[in-house]
Amino acid sequence: MTARLFIGSDQVDAWPAGNRLQAYGDGLFETMRVHRGQVPWWQSHWARLAHGAERLRLSLPDEVLVRENAASLFADDGDGVLKLLLGRGGTSRGYAPVTQQAPLWMLSRHVLPTTPASGLVARWCDTRLSIQPALAGLKHCTRLEQVLARIECDDAGVDEGLMLDGDGRVVSATSGNLFVLREGHWSTPPVDRCGVAGVCRAHLIELLQASEATLSVSQVEDADAVVLCNAVRGILPLARLGARVWSPRPAVAAARRLLAGIHPGFAPDAGMKTEHS
Amino acid sequence: MTARLFIGSDQVDAWPAGNRLQAYGDGLFETMRVHRGQVPWWQSHWARLAHGAERLRLSLPDEVLVRENAASLFADDGDGVLKLLLGRGGTSRGYAPVTQQAPLWMLSRHVLPTTPASGLVARWCDTRLSIQPALAGLKHCTRLEQVLARIECDDAGVDEGLMLDGDGRVVSATSGNLFVLREGHWSTPPVDRCGVAGVCRAHLIELLQASEATLSVSQVEDADAVVLCNAVRGILPLARLGARVWSPRPAVAAARRLLAGIHPGFAPDAGMKTEHS
Repeated sequence: MTARLFIGSDQVDAWPAGNRLQAYGDGLFETMRVHRGQVPWWQSHWARLAHGAERLRLSLPDEVLVRENAASLFADDGDGVLKLLLGRGGTSRGYAPVTQQAPLWMLSRHVLPTTPASGLVARWCDTRLSIQPALAGLKHCTRLEQVLARIECDDAGVDEGLMLDGDGRVVSATSGNLFVLREGHWSTPPVDRCGVAGVCRAHLIELLQASEATLSVSQVEDADAVVLCNAVRGILPLARLGARVWSPRPAVAAARRLLAGIHPGFAPDAGMKTEHS
Repeated sequence: MTARLFIGSDQVDAWPAGNRLQAYGDGLFETMRVHRGQVPWWQSHWARLAHGAERLRLSLPDEVLVRENAASLFADDGDGVLKLLLGRGGTSRGYAPVTQQAPLWMLSRHVLPTTPASGLVARWCDTRLSIQPALAGLKHCTRLEQVLARIECDDAGVDEGLMLDGDGRVVSATSGNLFVLREGHWSTPPVDRCGVAGVCRAHLIELLQASEATLSVSQVEDADAVVLCNAVRGILPLARLGARVWSPRPAVAAARRLLAGIHPGFAPDAGMKTEHS
């Protein structure tokens, strides 16, 4: 990982030890797929960040400065992941923010994750997502629920975990949204009570003419196909969920082609790293 | 603020830029009242930290090393606040922890906060605490709910805010637990669904023979006295909550004397800074 840290418009070697990101998770982040040095979905990511910043009353850095530094991290025109982390400025102890502090932000470059070529093996996580409309949809930095759920997955030796909210409704995977195909129609759970309003999710809703729908565990298990998605890995079909096994479906391949049409990084030959297991 | 940072048993100048505390709030903290260079409640704080670390599967640093450094930060035998921040080690992108990484930890010294001599003015916050049994009770670092609630308090110009859970039950203040006096008996909300199992709260339950009880908004407003408490400021009586006004009560003074008996920092003459408004 290569990283650059900033406070406002100044590049710095390190952030103050008492910064609010590490004290309280008081910030937002975006993880973006970079294809040949470009970030095809930059506008969607920046718009979500700006929306989140408005809801949390975070200051935004200058977009031009952020883009310039992002481009310079990928000056080799390579593929990879670009992460943008944004935190509230100020270092006083206590939850009360100090107003008019320059924001902390960091850009980092990471290698592309690998993806099983045969589809993901998933489980239902015991850890639930708590219902919190004030934070729902945002890609904020308070992620202990996802960390605990992810530990469950590692313990169980599966690729991913599906998560329910406190009322038992299906929400998402630990690091991706979820779409199900039922009777020829795609749907995905709403994200107004918990979960993240994924950038890839928004594009897929449009491409697949998908609807938002509350989903139960059995509606997911009965579905003709289940895919996860995020802005780094695109569409990830589930091959197995507990005892339920899915075979490859033409509708999933079609969805992947549609996605590749609006983001060349997700084309089958775009250097997506796969592990043949 | 004076701070010392460590990774495992090594003091360092800074933590890695990709650390999990600032990425995900993946850690715990303790804030302790220091009286004449001593931390009277050290054992309670360490026990809570160890319990939280077990639940989140965080590694603990060596307690002796932590205490030595804490003592050295207060080598002048002064009063103040000692904060201990503990984070999961490892810096890989993604929620999955890398096992067997040395923990990050930080000790910092802060000045004592000021407290209104006449009691606190509070409001009911619109921001709710989400119900999450997997994290309830822990003093973890994912605190955006408290940050949002605290912003409400600052906007409204009040000292503190009381918070309800998603079901409308009273839980706590933004940075303290809550006790109510009704018919001569003290009670405090349970913290098994949300909220923090405060160190001061645990001591007060014992001292006041208080019970855990679900409380509604009207049961708080009807109470004969309402106090907030935390391990830095001790007992903080509410003077006003919206339209409801409370006068000083002998039972509150008695509770403060009991607390001072087990923590000399909370004695009336112990240098507690007060603002006479």
